[in-house]
Amino acid sequence: MNEGEAGAVGAAGGRGTPAEVREVLERTPGLLDGWLRGLSEPWLSATEGEGTWSPREVVAHLADNEEVDWLPRLRIVLEHGEARPFTPFEREGFRARHAGRGIGELLDEFAARRRESLAALDALGLTEADLARTGMHPALGRVTVRQLLAAWAVHDLTHVAQVARVMAKRYAEAVGPWHAYLGVLSR
Amino acid sequence: MNEGEAGAVGAAGGRGTPAEVREVLERTPGLLDGWLRGLSEPWLSATEGEGTWSPREVVAHLADNEEVDWLPRLRIVLEHGEARPFTPFEREGFRARHAGRGIGELLDEFAARRRESLAALDALGLTEADLARTGMHPALGRVTVRQLLAAWAVHDLTHVAQVARVMAKRYAEAVGPWHAYLGVLSR
Repeated sequence: MNEGEAGAVGAAGGRGTPAEVREVLERTPGLLDGWLRGLSEPWLSATEGEGTWSPREVVAHLADNEEVDWLPRLRIVLEHGEARPFTPFEREGFRARHAGRGIGELLDEFAARRRESLAALDALGLTEADLARTGMHPALGRVTVRQLLAAWAVHDLTHVAQVARVMAKRYAEAVGPWHAYLGVLSR
Repeated sequence: MNEGEAGAVGAAGGRGTPAEVREVLERTPGLLDGWLRGLSEPWLSATEGEGTWSPREVVAHLADNEEVDWLPRLRIVLEHGEARPFTPFEREGFRARHAGRGIGELLDEFAARRRESLAALDALGLTEADLARTGMHPALGRVTVRQLLAAWAVHDLTHVAQVARVMAKRYAEAVGPWHAYLGVLSR
Protein backbone atom coordinates (compact mmCIF):
# COMPACT_ATOMS: atom_id res chain seq x y z
CA MET A 1 0.00 0.00 0.00
CA ASN A 2 1.23 3.44 -0.87
CA GLU A 3 1.78 5.54 2.26
CA GLY A 4 0.09 8.44 0.54
CA GLU A 5 -3.24 6.62 0.34
CA ALA A 6 -6.03 7.61 2.66
CA GLY A 7 -6.72 4.07 3.93
CA ALA A 8 -5.36 2.30 6.99
CA VAL A 9 -1.55 2.10 7.00
CA GLY A 10 -1.43 -1.08 9.02
CA ALA A 11 0.36 -3.05 6.33
CA ALA A 12 2.68 -0.28 5.15
CA GLY A 13 6.25 0.09 6.36
CA GLY A 14 8.34 3.04 7.43
CA ARG A 15 9.49 4.41 10.77
CA GLY A 16 6.75 4.89 13.31
CA THR A 17 4.07 3.12 11.27
CA PRO A 18 1.85 0.55 13.00
CA ALA A 19 3.31 -2.24 10.82
CA GLU A 20 6.92 -1.58 11.86
CA VAL A 21 6.27 -0.70 15.46
CA ARG A 22 4.12 -3.78 15.86
CA GLU A 23 7.06 -6.01 14.87
CA VAL A 24 8.90 -4.89 17.98
CA LEU A 25 5.91 -4.68 20.31
CA GLU A 26 4.63 -8.16 19.56
CA ARG A 27 8.01 -9.78 20.23
CA THR A 28 8.96 -8.22 23.55
CA PRO A 29 6.81 -10.40 25.84
CA GLY A 30 8.15 -13.59 24.26
CA LEU A 31 11.77 -12.54 24.39
CA LEU A 32 11.49 -11.54 28.05
CA ASP A 33 9.72 -14.80 28.80
CA GLY A 34 12.43 -16.91 27.19
CA TRP A 35 15.06 -14.92 29.02
CA LEU A 36 13.71 -14.44 32.55
CA ARG A 37 11.20 -17.20 33.36
CA GLY A 38 12.83 -19.67 35.72
CA LEU A 39 15.96 -17.58 36.16
CA SER A 40 17.38 -17.82 39.69
CA GLU A 41 16.77 -15.14 42.30
CA PRO A 42 20.22 -13.49 42.23
CA TRP A 43 19.74 -12.62 38.54
CA LEU A 44 16.09 -11.57 38.91
CA SER A 45 16.59 -9.28 41.88
CA ALA A 46 19.90 -7.69 40.85
CA THR A 47 19.86 -3.88 40.54
CA GLU A 48 22.31 -1.12 39.63
CA GLY A 49 22.02 0.30 43.15
CA GLU A 50 19.44 2.11 45.24
CA GLY A 51 16.59 3.62 43.26
CA THR A 52 17.21 1.40 40.22
CA TRP A 53 15.13 -1.51 38.98
CA SER A 54 15.79 -5.22 38.92
CA PRO A 55 14.82 -7.37 35.91
CA ARG A 56 11.70 -8.42 37.82
CA GLU A 57 10.76 -4.79 38.44
CA VAL A 58 11.29 -3.94 34.79
CA VAL A 59 8.74 -6.60 33.80
CA ALA A 60 6.30 -5.31 36.46
CA HIS A 61 6.78 -1.79 35.05
CA LEU A 62 6.13 -2.96 31.49
CA ALA A 63 2.97 -4.81 32.56
CA ASP A 64 1.75 -1.76 34.46
CA ASN A 65 2.76 0.69 31.75
CA GLU A 66 0.73 -1.20 29.20
CA GLU A 67 -2.45 -0.20 31.05
CA VAL A 68 -1.67 3.44 31.81
CA ASP A 69 0.68 4.72 29.13
CA TRP A 70 0.82 4.11 25.40
CA LEU A 71 -2.56 2.95 24.13
CA PRO A 72 -4.58 5.08 26.60
CA ARG A 73 -2.59 8.11 25.44
CA LEU A 74 -3.09 7.23 21.80
CA ARG A 75 -6.84 7.19 22.42
CA ILE A 76 -6.65 10.62 24.06
CA VAL A 77 -4.95 12.08 20.97
CA LEU A 78 -7.46 10.52 18.61
CA GLU A 79 -10.43 11.67 20.67
CA HIS A 80 -9.29 15.04 22.00
CA GLY A 81 -6.20 16.12 20.04
CA GLU A 82 -4.17 18.73 21.89
CA ALA A 83 -7.16 19.90 23.92
CA ARG A 84 -6.63 17.26 26.59
CA PRO A 85 -3.07 16.68 27.83
CA PHE A 86 -2.17 13.10 28.68
CA THR A 87 -2.92 12.00 32.22
CA PRO A 88 0.40 11.87 34.12
CA PHE A 89 1.12 8.53 35.74
CA GLU A 90 3.32 7.34 38.54
CA ARG A 91 6.45 5.59 37.23
CA GLU A 92 6.67 3.57 40.43
CA GLY A 93 2.96 2.72 40.34
CA PHE A 94 3.74 -0.88 39.52
CA ARG A 95 5.10 -1.41 43.02
CA ALA A 96 1.65 -1.22 44.61
CA ARG A 97 -0.22 -2.92 41.80
CA HIS A 98 2.17 -5.82 41.32
CA ALA A 99 3.51 -6.24 44.86
CA GLY A 100 4.62 -9.77 45.70
CA ARG A 101 4.11 -11.23 42.23
CA GLY A 102 6.57 -13.77 40.91
CA ILE A 103 8.31 -13.44 37.57
CA GLY A 104 6.03 -15.99 35.87
CA GLU A 105 2.89 -14.15 36.88
CA LEU A 106 4.37 -10.81 35.79
CA LEU A 107 5.40 -12.19 32.41
CA ASP A 108 1.93 -13.64 31.90
CA GLU A 109 0.38 -10.31 32.85
CA PHE A 110 2.60 -8.33 30.49
CA ALA A 111 1.93 -10.73 27.61
CA ALA A 112 -1.84 -10.59 28.13
CA ARG A 113 -1.93 -6.78 28.39
CA ARG A 114 0.28 -6.43 25.31
CA ARG A 115 -1.97 -8.73 23.28
CA GLU A 116 -4.93 -6.56 24.22
CA SER A 117 -3.06 -3.40 23.27
CA LEU A 118 -2.10 -4.76 19.87
CA ALA A 119 -5.63 -5.96 19.14
CA ALA A 120 -6.89 -2.50 20.05
CA LEU A 121 -4.20 -0.87 17.89
CA ASP A 122 -5.19 -3.03 14.93
CA ALA A 123 -8.85 -2.19 15.46
CA LEU A 124 -8.09 1.53 15.22
CA GLY A 125 -6.99 1.07 11.59
CA LEU A 126 -4.83 4.18 11.74
CA THR A 127 -4.51 6.20 8.53
CA GLU A 128 -1.59 8.38 7.42
CA ALA A 129 -3.66 11.35 8.51
CA ASP A 130 -4.06 9.82 11.97
CA LEU A 131 -0.28 9.39 12.29
CA ALA A 132 0.14 13.13 11.81
CA ARG A 133 -2.43 14.08 14.45
CA THR A 134 -1.05 15.82 17.53
CA GLY A 135 -1.60 15.53 21.24
CA MET A 136 -0.18 17.27 24.29
CA HIS A 137 2.30 15.51 26.58
CA PRO A 138 2.21 17.10 30.06
CA ALA A 139 6.01 17.51 30.13
CA LEU A 140 7.22 17.12 26.53
CA GLY A 141 4.63 19.30 24.80
CA ARG A 142 3.24 18.63 21.34
CA VAL A 143 3.72 15.09 20.02
CA THR A 144 2.38 13.25 16.98
CA VAL A 145 0.75 9.83 16.87
CA ARG A 146 3.68 8.61 14.80
CA GLN A 147 6.11 9.76 17.50
CA LEU A 148 4.01 8.08 20.17
CA LEU A 149 4.07 4.76 18.30
CA ALA A 150 7.83 5.04 17.71
CA ALA A 151 8.44 5.85 21.38
CA TRP A 152 6.34 2.87 22.47
CA ALA A 153 8.67 0.52 20.55
CA VAL A 154 11.83 2.26 21.76
CA HIS A 155 10.50 2.13 25.32
CA ASP A 156 10.47 -1.67 25.01
CA LEU A 157 14.00 -1.64 23.62
CA THR A 158 15.37 0.65 26.32
CA HIS A 159 14.07 -1.74 28.96
CA VAL A 160 15.47 -4.81 27.19
CA ALA A 161 18.85 -3.07 27.14
CA GLN A 162 18.37 -2.21 30.82
CA VAL A 163 17.75 -5.84 31.81
CA ALA A 164 20.93 -6.91 29.99
CA ARG A 165 22.90 -4.10 31.66
CA VAL A 166 21.59 -4.83 35.16
CA MET A 167 22.38 -8.51 34.85
CA ALA A 168 25.81 -7.79 33.39
CA LYS A 169 26.72 -5.43 36.22
CA ARG A 170 26.23 -8.21 38.77
CA TYR A 171 29.41 -9.57 37.20
CA ALA A 172 31.30 -6.29 36.88
CA GLU A 173 34.02 -7.56 39.20
CA ALA A 174 33.69 -11.25 38.42
CA VAL A 175 34.87 -10.77 34.83
CA GLY A 176 38.25 -9.46 36.03
CA PRO A 177 40.43 -8.03 33.23
CA TRP A 178 37.67 -8.66 30.64
CA HIS A 179 35.90 -5.58 32.06
CA ALA A 180 37.71 -3.46 29.47
CA TYR A 181 36.19 -5.41 26.57
CA LEU A 182 32.59 -5.55 27.76
CA GLY A 183 31.00 -2.22 26.93
CA VAL A 184 27.74 -2.89 28.72
CA LEU A 185 29.57 -2.67 32.07
CA SER A 186 30.48 0.96 31.46
CA ARG A 187 27.00 2.18 30.53
CA MET B 1 26.94 -28.84 47.44
CA ASN B 2 29.35 -26.84 49.52
CA GLU B 3 31.61 -24.72 47.33
CA GLY B 4 34.56 -25.80 49.42
CA GLU B 5 34.17 -29.43 48.43
CA ALA B 6 36.55 -30.94 45.95
CA GLY B 7 33.82 -32.27 43.64
CA ALA B 8 32.28 -30.66 40.57
CA VAL B 9 30.64 -27.30 41.30
CA GLY B 10 28.11 -27.60 38.51
CA ALA B 11 25.13 -27.40 40.83
CA ALA B 12 26.51 -24.77 43.21
CA GLY B 13 25.69 -21.08 42.87
CA GLY B 14 27.76 -17.93 43.13
CA ARG B 15 29.20 -15.48 40.61
CA GLY B 16 31.19 -17.07 37.81
CA THR B 17 30.21 -20.65 38.69
CA PRO B 18 29.09 -22.98 35.90
CA ALA B 19 25.59 -23.18 37.44
CA GLU B 20 25.00 -19.44 37.35
CA VAL B 21 26.75 -18.70 34.09
CA ARG B 22 24.85 -21.51 32.42
CA GLU B 23 21.53 -19.87 33.29
CA VAL B 24 22.45 -16.96 31.05
CA LEU B 25 24.24 -18.92 28.35
CA GLU B 26 21.44 -21.42 27.79
CA ARG B 27 18.81 -18.70 27.38
CA THR B 28 20.50 -16.37 24.88
CA PRO B 29 19.81 -18.37 21.69
CA GLY B 30 16.10 -18.64 22.53
CA LEU B 31 15.69 -15.01 23.42
CA LEU B 32 17.41 -13.88 20.21
CA ASP B 33 15.30 -16.33 18.22
CA GLY B 34 12.04 -15.02 19.67
CA TRP B 35 13.19 -11.47 19.03
CA LEU B 36 14.82 -11.53 15.60
CA ARG B 37 13.45 -14.44 13.56
CA GLY B 38 11.06 -13.11 10.96
CA LEU B 39 11.83 -9.48 11.75
CA SER B 40 11.76 -7.25 8.65
CA GLU B 41 14.92 -6.20 6.85
CA PRO B 42 15.06 -2.57 8.05
CA TRP B 43 15.32 -3.78 11.66
CA LEU B 44 17.73 -6.63 10.92
CA SER B 45 20.19 -4.58 8.88
CA ALA B 46 20.14 -1.39 10.94
CA THR B 47 23.53 -0.28 12.31
CA GLU B 48 24.91 2.56 14.43
CA GLY B 49 26.99 3.77 11.49
CA GLU B 50 30.02 2.63 9.54
CA GLY B 51 32.09 -0.04 11.27
CA THR B 52 29.25 -1.06 13.60
CA TRP B 53 27.19 -4.23 13.53
CA SER B 54 23.58 -4.85 12.65
CA PRO B 55 21.43 -7.27 14.69
CA ARG B 56 22.05 -9.90 11.97
CA GLU B 57 25.81 -9.38 12.25
CA VAL B 58 25.66 -9.68 16.02
CA VAL B 59 24.06 -13.12 15.69
CA ALA B 60 26.67 -14.14 13.10
CA HIS B 61 29.39 -12.97 15.50
CA LEU B 62 27.89 -14.96 18.38
CA ALA B 63 27.64 -18.10 16.25
CA ASP B 64 31.22 -17.67 15.09
CA ASN B 65 32.53 -16.75 18.52
CA GLU B 66 31.11 -19.92 19.99
CA GLU B 67 33.59 -21.92 17.92
CA VAL B 68 36.71 -19.83 18.40
CA ASP B 69 36.46 -18.07 21.73
CA TRP B 70 35.13 -19.23 25.10
CA LEU B 71 35.13 -23.00 25.28
CA PRO B 72 38.30 -23.43 23.20
CA ARG B 73 40.05 -20.98 25.52
CA LEU B 74 38.74 -22.75 28.60
CA ARG B 75 40.26 -25.97 27.27
CA ILE B 76 43.60 -24.22 26.75
CA VAL B 77 43.66 -23.10 30.39
CA LEU B 78 42.76 -26.55 31.67
CA GLU B 79 45.35 -28.28 29.49
CA HIS B 80 48.20 -25.76 29.43
CA GLY B 81 47.62 -23.18 32.18
CA GLU B 82 49.54 -19.98 31.57
CA ALA B 83 52.14 -21.73 29.43
CA ARG B 84 50.09 -21.35 26.27
CA PRO B 85 48.43 -17.95 25.64
CA PHE B 86 45.02 -18.07 23.99
CA THR B 87 44.98 -18.09 20.22
CA PRO B 88 43.96 -14.60 19.04
CA PHE B 89 40.99 -14.55 16.70
CA GLU B 90 39.62 -12.15 14.16
CA ARG B 91 36.59 -10.26 15.51
CA GLU B 92 35.32 -9.80 11.98
CA GLY B 93 35.94 -13.45 11.11
CA PHE B 94 32.24 -14.14 10.99
CA ARG B 95 31.94 -12.10 7.80
CA ALA B 96 33.74 -14.69 5.72
CA ARG B 97 32.37 -17.74 7.49
CA HIS B 98 28.75 -16.66 7.57
CA ALA B 99 28.53 -14.55 4.41
CA GLY B 100 25.09 -14.44 2.83
CA ARG B 101 23.30 -16.37 5.55
CA GLY B 102 19.79 -15.36 6.54
CA ILE B 103 18.78 -14.64 10.10
CA GLY B 104 17.01 -18.01 10.53
CA GLU B 105 20.09 -19.96 9.50
CA LEU B 106 22.33 -17.85 11.76
CA LEU B 107 20.02 -18.33 14.74
CA ASP B 108 19.95 -22.08 14.13
CA GLU B 109 23.74 -22.14 13.88
CA PHE B 110 24.22 -20.17 17.10
CA ALA B 111 21.74 -22.36 18.99
CA ALA B 112 23.42 -25.57 17.81
CA ARG B 113 26.95 -24.36 18.63
CA ARG B 114 25.80 -23.12 22.04
CA ARG B 115 24.18 -26.48 22.85
CA GLU B 116 27.48 -28.18 22.00
CA SER B 117 29.42 -25.75 24.17
CA LEU B 118 27.17 -26.29 27.16
CA ALA B 119 27.29 -30.08 26.81
CA ALA B 120 31.09 -29.84 26.71
CA LEU B 121 31.11 -27.50 29.72
CA ASP B 122 28.96 -29.94 31.69
CA ALA B 123 31.23 -32.82 30.72
CA LEU B 124 34.25 -31.00 32.15
CA GLY B 125 32.71 -31.21 35.65
CA LEU B 126 34.70 -28.20 36.81
CA THR B 127 35.78 -28.17 40.47
CA GLU B 128 36.41 -25.18 42.71
CA ALA B 129 40.10 -25.75 42.12
CA ASP B 130 39.54 -25.61 38.36
CA LEU B 131 37.74 -22.26 38.68
CA ALA B 132 40.86 -20.80 40.28
CA ARG B 133 43.22 -22.04 37.57
CA THR B 134 44.87 -19.37 35.46
CA GLY B 135 45.54 -18.88 31.79
CA MET B 136 47.13 -16.17 29.68
CA HIS B 137 45.05 -13.85 27.52
CA PRO B 138 47.19 -12.42 24.70
CA ALA B 139 46.13 -8.84 25.50
CA LEU B 140 44.62 -8.91 28.99
CA GLY B 141 47.22 -11.04 30.74
CA ARG B 142 46.48 -13.50 33.52
CA VAL B 143 42.85 -14.58 33.84
CA THR B 144 41.12 -17.25 35.90
CA VAL B 145 38.65 -19.86 34.71
CA ARG B 146 36.01 -18.21 36.89
CA GLN B 147 36.63 -14.88 35.16
CA LEU B 148 36.45 -16.55 31.76
CA LEU B 149 33.07 -18.11 32.58
CA ALA B 150 31.76 -14.80 33.94
CA ALA B 151 32.98 -12.93 30.84
CA TRP B 152 31.31 -15.47 28.55
CA ALA B 153 27.92 -14.69 30.15
CA VAL B 154 28.49 -10.92 30.12
CA HIS B 155 29.58 -11.15 26.48
CA ASP B 156 26.10 -12.50 25.68
CA LEU B 157 24.51 -9.69 27.68
CA THR B 158 26.57 -6.94 26.07
CA HIS B 159 25.42 -8.13 22.65
CA VAL B 160 21.77 -8.36 23.72
CA ALA B 161 22.04 -4.76 24.92
CA GLN B 162 23.72 -3.87 21.61
CA VAL B 163 20.88 -5.31 19.54
CA ALA B 164 18.33 -3.32 21.55
CA ARG B 165 20.43 -0.16 21.18
CA VAL B 166 20.97 -0.57 17.44
CA MET B 167 17.27 -1.14 16.82
CA ALA B 168 16.31 1.79 19.06
CA LYS B 169 18.66 4.18 17.26
CA ARG B 170 16.84 3.57 13.99
CA TYR B 171 14.06 5.53 15.70
CA ALA B 172 16.24 8.21 17.30
CA GLU B 173 14.51 10.93 15.29
CA ALA B 174 11.16 9.20 14.88
CA VAL B 175 10.42 9.40 18.62
CA GLY B 176 10.55 13.21 18.54
CA PRO B 177 10.45 14.84 22.00
CA TRP B 178 10.44 11.42 23.71
CA HIS B 179 14.16 11.22 22.91
CA ALA B 180 14.87 12.80 26.31
CA TYR B 181 13.15 9.98 28.18
CA LEU B 182 14.63 7.01 26.33
CA GLY B 183 18.08 6.42 27.73
CA VAL B 184 19.09 3.76 25.22
CA LEU B 185 19.23 6.45 22.51
CA SER B 186 22.05 8.26 24.29
CA ARG B 187 24.30 5.24 24.86
